Order: sequence, then structure tokens, then C-alpha cells
Amino acid sequence: MELAALRHRPESEDAFLYDPTHMRVRLHAKAGDVAGVSVLFNDPNWFEDRDGKMTFIYHEKTLVKLGTGQLQDYWGTTLTAPYRRLQYLFVVTGTDGTTTLFGDRGTRADSEEERQELGNYFRMPYFHQIDRVKTPDWVKETVWYQIFPERFANGDKANDPAGTKPWQPSDHPGREDYYGGDLQGVLDHLDDLQNLGINGLYFCPLFKASSNHKYDTIDYLEIDPDFGDKALFAKLVNEAHKRGMKVMLDAVFNHMGYASPQWLDVVENGEQSRFKDWFHIYEFPVTPYRNPVLKEGAPQFDTFAFGDNMPKLNTANPEVQDYLLTVATYWIKQFDIDAWRLDVANEVDHHFWAKFNAACKAVKPDFYILGEIWHSSQNWLNGTEFDGVMNYAFTQQIEHHFLTGKQDAKTAMALLVDQLMLYRDQTDQVMLNMLDSHDTPRIRTIAGGNEDKALQALAFTFLQTGAPCIYYGTEMGMEGDNDPDDRKPMDWSQLGQPIWQRVQQLIALRHRFAKLLGTGTTQLEVRDDGLIQVTRVLGDQTLVGLFNTTAQPVAVTVQAPAYTQQFGDGALLPLGVVVSIS
Amino acid sequence: MELAALRHRPESEDAFLYDPTHMRVRLHAKAGDVAGVSVLFNDPNWFEDRDGKMTFIYHEKTLVKLGTGQLQDYWGTTLTAPYRRLQYLFVVTGTDGTTTLFGDRGTRADSEEERQELGNYFRMPYFHQIDRVKTPDWVKETVWYQIFPERFANGDKANDPAGTKPWQPSDHPGREDYYGGDLQGVLDHLDDLQNLGINGLYFCPLFKASSNHKYDTIDYLEIDPDFGDKALFAKLVNEAHKRGMKVMLDAVFNHMGYASPQWLDVVENGEQSRFKDWFHIYEFPVTPYRNPVLKEGAPQFDTFAFGDNMPKLNTANPEVQDYLLTVATYWIKQFDIDAWRLDVANEVDHHFWAKFNAACKAVKPDFYILGEIWHSSQNWLNGTEFDGVMNYAFTQQIEHHFLTGKQDAKTAMALLVDQLMLYRDQTDQVMLNMLDSHDTPRIRTIAGGNEDKALQALAFTFLQTGAPCIYYGTEMGMEGDNDPDDRKPMDWSQLGQPIWQRVQQLIALRHRFAKLLGTGTTQLEVRDDGLIQVTRVLGDQTLVGLFNTTAQPVAVTVQAPAYTQQFGDGALLPLGVVVSIS
Repeated sequence: MELAALRHRPESEDAFLYDPTHMRVRLHAKAGDVAGVSVLFNDPNWFEDRDGKMTFIYHEKTLVKLGTGQLQDYWGTTLTAPYRRLQYLFVVTGTDGTTTLFGDRGTRADSEEERQELGNYFRMPYFHQIDRVKTPDWVKETVWYQIFPERFANGDKANDPAGTKPWQPSDHPGREDYYGGDLQGVLDHLDDLQNLGINGLYFCPLFKASSNHKYDTIDYLEIDPDFGDKALFAKLVNEAHKRGMKVMLDAVFNHMGYASPQWLDVVENGEQSRFKDWFHIYEFPVTPYRNPVLKEGAPQFDTFAFGDNMPKLNTANPEVQDYLLTVATYWIKQFDIDAWRLDVANEVDHHFWAKFNAACKAVKPDFYILGEIWHSSQNWLNGTEFDGVMNYAFTQQIEHHFLTGKQDAKTAMALLVDQLMLYRDQTDQVMLNMLDSHDTPRIRTIAGGNEDKALQALAFTFLQTGAPCIYYGTEMGMEGDNDPDDRKPMDWSQLGQPIWQRVQQLIALRHRFAKLLGTGTTQLEVRDDGLIQVTRVLGDQTLVGLFNTTAQPVAVTVQAPAYTQQFGDGALLPLGVVVSIS
Repeated sequence: MELAALRHRPESEDAFLYDPTHMRVRLHAKAGDVAGVSVLFNDPNWFEDRDGKMTFIYHEKTLVKLGTGQLQDYWGTTLTAPYRRLQYLFVVTGTDGTTTLFGDRGTRADSEEERQELGNYFRMPYFHQIDRVKTPDWVKETVWYQIFPERFANGDKANDPAGTKPWQPSDHPGREDYYGGDLQGVLDHLDDLQNLGINGLYFCPLFKASSNHKYDTIDYLEIDPDFGDKALFAKLVNEAHKRGMKVMLDAVFNHMGYASPQWLDVVENGEQSRFKDWFHIYEFPVTPYRNPVLKEGAPQFDTFAFGDNMPKLNTANPEVQDYLLTVATYWIKQFDIDAWRLDVANEVDHHFWAKFNAACKAVKPDFYILGEIWHSSQNWLNGTEFDGVMNYAFTQQIEHHFLTGKQDAKTAMALLVDQLMLYRDQTDQVMLNMLDSHDTPRIRTIAGGNEDKALQALAFTFLQTGAPCIYYGTEMGMEGDNDPDDRKPMDWSQLGQPIWQRVQQLIALRHRFAKLLGTGTTQLEVRDDGLIQVTRVLGDQTLVGLFNTTAQPVAVTVQAPAYTQQFGDGALLPLGVVVSIS
């Protein structure tokens, strides 16, 4: 057995309270190397006299294999502790027949004597409810829809910026183009989104800013006049809530826009500016900005990437914290928004996010906090900062198989399992699973224009743990390459057409089995016949999704399927999907 | 190469800011399996045009082997980031000649194309100083001395409890015995402790409590009258500070004493008590307590272990938090104490400790917070809760080899390396390395009475990363078995005698090389000749300690040793120690 590959991190995604009385544990082992695992556990104070010796009394429970990653198998089980304390030790049996104890101080040959070496037990010292990672239940049953406001719908010509171009979905927008999208446009189409099945709206920035994308904020307390005003926004939130839709806004707190009064004051007054400590400045004057990649020398201040137009905020400055927390709570208190999506969230300090979390949840306990982080994010997801992150690290594995074929099915499933095992189950359940966004090419484009491929990947995503999110226009079969081509004006001509209907069916499926798809266990495998099988189980309900990503039809018999694509006559065709319930 | 054994956790003890501008990274690999590791790194936004393609430009740096654990080798290096952001990817070459990339999304065959797969880079998103784990520098140069106040010295007969027994160091104290030790006794001997070289006093509880050990607090805002009063304590702190000694008190916040007014109110008034939510109570009346181990049924309330006399505090209750934080800051503000040692710290919630940390450090920024945790403690040591823990998990490995011989030298050194690699370097530097305490048998007793063994283990401990702590009486060669036998009255007859002198020399060695032993790198190995070698390096200064734990003399030539035990005539005898500097 490969002992060096055994791994378990106490009080982490490997050992966590799932609900008030249940703790879940996971053990990592080399893939295929372990035949079985059990765990010895009890209250650490449970000693009884055995033959005149005070002996630790333990229970024993068998683990099951949760899945197989690229290099590891994951084993897990659920434990209870009537007196709210646990110590535990793994007994691992290799496929080679050897057995070892694996604990907090390493591996030992198994013996009753070593089982009594209490220093080697892992600990869950106490089931503290305040420390338990709790994620909002409503997110687990949400289908999100991401709106890039400038390109969704133009409902009010009166607020169109100068030079607004005609609404032409086939355009390839330039970086500086305007098309006149606005909040009235969203209001006008709320019923369409409701018909589609959407119950969560995720808006790219709405606050006053310089650009069409509005990521260069001028004023966090104003709606951009290109989009409308606060009264209109309030109406939009109310109308959304009436339709059972939650509302998520985009907070750009890593940096400010160049045209913000705070930064302009720094540009003008230099070291005398009362805002000089709002940013990370190393030298005055701050302009003209030196870009080190262009060999201009060291920049005078920190920015987003190496651009001069988005100076980085100093979130360790209590004044800045106060300002941003005021912003954060203002939109919750005054407009009743349900969630913040946090831009470039990884580059802001953890101390600030902890305060941000506390402030938001104090106003609205089931508020949802979503960070934009593209890499593994354990440190942000321990219950005190974010609930979930934009799950690119997960969804890109789907694309690498379903859309581009860069990864074979087995590798893709393995890498997806690895991603799921980075986080607690309740965290995985509230990740934002979007295949594309304003920052990536559109899925149909990634799929080389093949709509069936795009929809197969979407269907697969809808069966996963984590809340799916549709980027505006996906339901219209829109295409678009990288930014800014992924931000074309919405193609409303496709409303209610076949692609739209298929997306609507997928969303209906997700809602029909909301609890099961929201919180059920997940197994991902590639069957011997080449089909990818997704199995979700909750209580006595099981959902099975089969996906044909091979070039050949595969014989499949399913009675009364819940969802199909390219399926019939007992065969799942290439690009086919069939979902069944039992 | 055993890919499944490769491991690196971003933003953790594997990837941390060591000082404002340097980040340290560690990679785990199967022991003996890897021939070399390098890391590719740069600002994640550093792209240049290479042959018409925007290409990520990376630097490359070689890692060194930091040490070998039970199953793993640890590789590490230090990186800088002029623009405060980094992404990095490991290139690992096996002893089998194969090379692999190891990154955030798994392993890949090495190629320039895969090096450009940016999603596979680990991230240190920004060098946030506020998130950097900072530990108090003074602790790194402290030699602690633990005082069990009832047994250190009786300086004032007037406050002796009824039935105080004669001061007899050869006694085997019973659980309920009193010997009259008090604060005046400590004051009387401060000069002795200064002569010994002590510069940190760690007091077991001083607050008003029921028992001789005072872990069952009645009033956290009073000095126990058996020990003295606040005026005397203030004098003691002042006198200690005058002598350059820091003062650490023991805070028992997991539970209260049965005789505290809060708990007595609950006992008396049941559900009507205004303190009922101060504890974890499941059923009234709360007495007589049911002990589940004795098959009496489910306890009515949570306690320390399953005892009825230490009801567990509900630290999630804001009233309790306020009360305990008032206590915590009162003794800092009013008496200028320098550190808290936190009893049963692992069973108190993390949210409370974060508030505790913030409250203490706000009053005194270089305050030291030490948790009593016997198992691995990563989650408490990320900069927002504790600075260090009582390092039993480390020191027990020393005992298992040096004192009991349960582990061979190689295994013991490997397990010590594993322990060091659980934490950031600056955390290891402020761990409390005590071989024994009021909760364990004394080292001489563990060593079967062999004082040379005990002193060899102590010398080894003094050369380690982490602040050493001497349990009162060790310098007198005292013996004692488990609690309460480890709490004998101090044997003052040995003051200034040979054992005392040897301990004094060890302490002098630690102070003489305080910076080097406090913050230098550490290598632990077993040489071919069987000697254990400890190498500490800081700048151009190197300290080497050799320890003979074999049964044979080993030829060793050292000029001008800085410390010796059983060394001479070119040979290190069994139980010998020799320390040299170059």
C-alpha cells in the first residue's frame, strides 16, 4: 500500500459538520490502492476498565468510496457524536492485503496496543454550531441567469448613451461600443425569464462607472444613469421577488475606477490627498502610470493587472472598510438584494471579507456571498468569508471533455471529482456552475458552433452539485468569442424557439428534482460502454443521467425518461442525453 | 514517481508570507522518490508577445530538501514578488528520471504548452500584510518556566489553607492536598529564576477557584486568596518585568467551576436562571449529574470530560463573550501581563478565539496567545486565533526516543520533521516546547530516574525551533509520576547544585544564540555513525548539536564546544551532547 499517499486534514473539507449532528470525514488514498477503510471513533473521554486497565472504547464504521480523482480515491462516511466530541483513527486495508492505522501523527502497524495510542487520533474537539459552515438553502434550488446589462435589452431609449449602436445580435462589439441595454429592458423581459424557469438574477455591475462593462466604478451608491435609477432598480427587485427570483449584484471592491472622486483627488493632490491611504501607492505623482511589462519601470501604485485605470483599493484601511461595508449593507437594507458577487475576490484581503460576511449576514442571515475565484479556494470557503465561488475550475473540466474534447471522459470525470473534494458538501452545493460568462467565450462557440454539444454540456452541468447559471443568450443559441465578442446584443428573435425550449426543459428538470439535485450525493463514472453516468441519490430517490460523448450510438433502455436529447429506439446517439428517476 | 503522494496546499503552511516581501513554499513528495523540484513563477499578469502569441513569462527557481518525514520528503524555497502577486507551478523530477508538472488542477506531463495552461498554476493572489501570520518576536528568544503556584514556594504562612501539609518534596501529594505555595513565594525566588536564566514565567491558574489546581474558576477577576491578592500580583508582574521576564497567565475559558456564582444560580434556579444560556444545558434540573460512561444516561449538560464539576461555557453566547473578553483584557490593561495560555483551547469555538485574539492584540500588539492543544492545530494557527500551542505533539516524539526508547532515532527525527511541517516557520518559532508539565509525568521519571537522559532530552529540546519551557523543579532534578504526583512541593535543597547548574548552562546557551536558535533553519538527521545531528543556520552562523543516544561511545572532534555533556577525549559517550558553532 502506498502509505505516502494517505491524506486527511482535520477540521477542513476532509472533516466537517454537515448538519448540526453529523460530521463527515474523507480519506484520500492512491487510486486503486486501497481495498477498504474503516474509522474507529468515540468521545475522547470514553474510557472503561478492561481487565484492570482504563481502555479507550471505540466504535467502528466502514467508509465507502466516494469517487476517484486523477490520482486518488476518496473514501468517506458520516459520524455522529451524542456528546458532541469525537476522536477518530482510520484503519486502512490495501489491495495488497496489508492493514495500517492512519492518524494524526502518521501511520502505524495495526494492533490493539497502537489503537490505544491516543495521541494518534484525529480530533473534532466539539460540534460547535457557530463554527459549522452553513450555506443558504435557497441557492441549492436556484437556477441563475447572468445579465450583462448593456447588452440584455434596451427598454428605454431616453437613457441611451451618445453614439449608441443599433441592436444587432450578429455584431462583433468593440471595446468601447454602446447598445443601450438598461434596467427597463430587464423589467420588460422578466416574464420571459420566469417562463424560462429562472429564479435567480445575477447582474454584472449596475453602479455608476466609466465603461460599458461598469467594472471601473465611479460611485457605488448610484445606479449608472445609462441603466436607470434607484427607483427603477427598486421596482426591478420587487418585481423579481414577486416572481420568486432572487437578485445578485456585482461588487467591484478590489479596485475603483480611475474617474472615481477618490482617485481623482489622489491624482490631483498627490500626497496631500485625504484619500492617499485608500490605495496602495509607492510614489507620487501617480501619473503617468509606469507599466513594468512594457519595461517602463516599477508602477507608482497597485492596480488591477497592470492597467492604469483601475487603482487597487487598500481594504486594510479602516476608512475604506467602513465605506465598502456601508455600500455592502446599503443595497441589502434599502433594496433587499439577496446576494453579492465579488469581483476579483481573491486579490482582496481575508480580513476584509470576514468583516464583509459578518456585516451582510447580520442584515440578512440567508444572504449569499459569491466570490470570483478561478483557482482552488479553500481558504475563502470556511464559513467566514464566501458561501461559494464562480466554479470555473469545475466547469472548465466539463468543457475540456464535452465541448473541446481536450480531455477524455475518464480524465474529465476524475478531475471533476478532485474539484468536488476540495470543499465541504454544503459548499459544493452553492457553487455557481456557469459554463461561460462575460469573461469567457460562449459555450456554443467553444463547441465549434455545435448546439447539440453545447446543450449536452449544459445538461451535464444541470445534473451536478452546485447551482447552474445561464449566461444571457445561451437560451437563444448565441455565439461569441472572448471578451468583447461574448457581449453581443441579445438575440430576442430566438425567444420560444427550439433551443430556448430545450433550455427551458432542462431548467424544469432541475426544478422538478430540486432537492435531489441540490443536495443529493454525486457519483461520476465512465461505463464500460463508454457512456458517462451521473448518479444522484437523496433518501430513496435516485436520478441517473447518461451522456454519450462517443462517436457511436450506444444501446440504452430507459422507461419514462425525465429528459432526453438524441435518444430513441433503445439507443443513445452521439451527443445524446437521457435522464431517468427511480 | 509516485504522483499520488505529491501535495501542496495553497495559502497554508505550504504557501505563506514569512516576512513582508518573502513567500515560502513547500512541496510534499514520497520520501526518496524525487530527485529535484523547481518552481515556475511570476506575476499572473506578466504576458509578453512571443512569436505573435501572448505568452506567460515565468522565472524558475530550484527547491531544496527541507527534511524527511515518516513517509514524505519536504521541498521548499522562498519567492519574492515585486508587484505583490504570484502564480506558481512545480516541476518535479523523479529519481526514476521522469518529470511532471504539479499544479492547482493536478499533474501533467511537462511541456511548454502545459506550462502555458494557466489554470493549473497555484496562486498567492496578493501579498496582504494584514493577512500575514505575524508572531511576537520576543517569544522566539524566551525561555519559559512553568509554575504550579500551590507547589512552588510558600512565602506567606498567613494565607495557608486549613490543613496545609508540611513542605516535603519527597511527598506523593494527594488530589486534595494543600502545601501553601503562593505569589509571595514566587516573589521571594524571582532572583533565583533570573539566575537560572528564565525570561518568561508561565503561571498555572491564579484566579479564585475551589481546588488546589484552580482549574475550576469561581471568579476570573480575583486572585485566589490562597495565593495573595491583586496588589501582590501587580508587584510580581512589575518585579518580573524589571528582570526582563514576561508573564503568562492561564485562562480557563472552556468551562467554569461548579462553585462559580453563575453555575450555582443555574443549579438553584434551573430554567429561570439568568445564566442558563451561559452553558450547554439539555435538561433541568441539572443535578444530580448523569455520567454516560457509568451508564447513567445522557448528561443534562456539557462539561469538561464527563466530570460534574466543570460545566462547559457557551462561548457562542454574546453575554459570555463579553464577560470573557472583559476578563481577557482586564489583566492586560490593569496588570500588563504579556501572554495568555488557554486551557482546553481546542474545545472552545473558533469564532470566540478570533474575537479573543482581536481584543488582546488591540490592547497589546505583541501579546502572545498560547493554546493548549495536544493534536495537530493548523486551524488555530492561521494568524487570527493563537500564536502557538503547547507542543506536546512535537515534544512527545523527543521523549519517545530520548527518554523511553519507544522510537528509534530515525523515526523520531522523521516524526519531528512532520510536526515542523504542519505549521508556518514563524509559528513553529513560537510554539511552547515543554517536555513535561502539570499534566504529564516529569521527564526524569519518564527517563526511569536517569538524570543524564533527562538532561540530554532537554538539551535536544533547547536546540529546536520553538521556545523551550521548563516545568518547575526540573532544574532540581525532581521526579514525579502522573497528576497529582507531578505536583510535588518544590525541592529547594537543590538550588545551585550540579543539576541546577547544567540547566543554567543550557539556558545560557539558548540565550547566547537566541536569534539563531529562535529563527534559524533546522535540519534533523541521524548520521551514519548513529549520532543525531541538529543543524541550525541563520545567515552565516551555523550551530551543530550532536547527541549520542546509542550504547557506544562515538569518535567526535569538536574544537571549543559551546556546550557539552558526556564528551571528552575525542569521543561522545552514551547520553552525550556536544554543541559547536561555526
